[in-house]
Amino acid sequence: MPFVNIKITPDGATPEKKAELIAGVTNLLRDTLGKNPATTVVIIDEVETDNWGIGGETVTARRKKG
Amino acid sequence: MPFVNIKITPDGATPEKKAELIAGVTNLLRDTLGKNPATTVVIIDEVETDNWGIGGETVTARRKKG
Amino acid sequence: MPFVNIKITPDGATPEKKAELIAGVTNLLRDTLGKNPATTVVIIDEVETDNWGIGGETVTARRKKG
Amino acid sequence: MPFVNIKITPDGATPEKKAELIAGVTNLLRDTLGKNPATTVVIIDEVETDNWGIGGETVTARRKKG
Amino acid sequence: MPFVNIKITPDGATPEKKAELIAGVTNLLRDTLGKNPATTVVIIDEVETDNWGIGGETVTARRKKG
Amino acid sequence: MPFVNIKITPDGATPEKKAELIAGVTNLLRDTLGKNPATTVVIIDEVETDNWGIGGETVTARRKKG
Repeated sequence: MPFVNIKITPDGATPEKKAELIAGVTNLLRDTLGKNPATTVVIIDEVETDNWGIGGETVTARRKKG
Repeated sequence: MPFVNIKITPDGATPEKKAELIAGVTNLLRDTLGKNPATTVVIIDEVETDNWGIGGETVTARRKKG
Repeated sequence: MPFVNIKITPDGATPEKKAELIAGVTNLLRDTLGKNPATTVVIIDEVETDNWGIGGETVTARRKKG
Repeated sequence: MPFVNIKITPDGATPEKKAELIAGVTNLLRDTLGKNPATTVVIIDEVETDNWGIGGETVTARRKKG
Repeated sequence: MPFVNIKITPDGATPEKKAELIAGVTNLLRDTLGKNPATTVVIIDEVETDNWGIGGETVTARRKKG
Repeated sequence: MPFVNIKITPDGATPEKKAELIAGVTNLLRDTLGKNPATTVVIIDEVETDNWGIGGETVTARRKKG
């Protein structure tokens, strides 16, 4: 019955990779805490780099600096 | 003063349906808990089926199986 | 398959009232958008009034003013 | 190490304004609570006015009324 | 840089199990999407069974039925 | 009308500090984006260090290492 929300920047997150991530986190919750996969919900939010800040800067700005 | 976040897949969620949902949940909080509708905030997130997992699979994959 | 998160201050939110709210929002999603109640998840967060701000003040401070 | 999520309607939120908001909230957490800016994460979600309700109505509907 | 929020009911979630879950999900994001573990943040929320609903009922009520 | 959720570990977050943070973030949204303070909502979640992971470890474990 767990609920998992994963926020990432979209780079390279293909449908196949996202499906792999959903399967992986669901299995992990079963293996570590005995949670039932059938009712485990995972939602992925893809957030643009202009809208993600770390260290007081946007990811867009950090990447420009290299 | 409640805050409500509703995550759904977008299928058929027209502006009219979403307005109806917002009104309904606001009234429900007034009727069950006496919450003030004027300050009740409801935010709807529409999540693509590739980004929503249940039972270890994406909703996209589950729908393909029928 | 919807996921709903409801944040409220704890005042008077008995287990019975919370059960009523969960049933109500689940039925509302079925009635407005045709969502399946069996997979609708609702999580209620109770937030202390010191941790909730509106209008730039905590709810604790607003209530003191009456 | 704080994590901040800011939900706004998109009106006028240019990349520059969002960068300013990210810097500001990061500095505020340093100044009020001594939090380390290097590990402060800020995510901005821009929510369409059809998906945002207050007072039982969408923001779209409220704006039409003027 | 991902941010992950995991909501679970508290049953059996010892500090050791939670540490294992945090390590596991961080590694999974590195392995599937190449995300940097150093900046991956994971927050676990433990939600009481009275505050978690599925199928229109609280988890408390479902467990009583067995 | 913005909604802000701030997650922090509880260290030293007194009611006064939290009130200062709520006022500060509300003013910041007014000053950077012209948002109306009257309808700005801020919710602070205090998360135990066992439930917060960064770099694949809990904050509890990181602090033990010094």
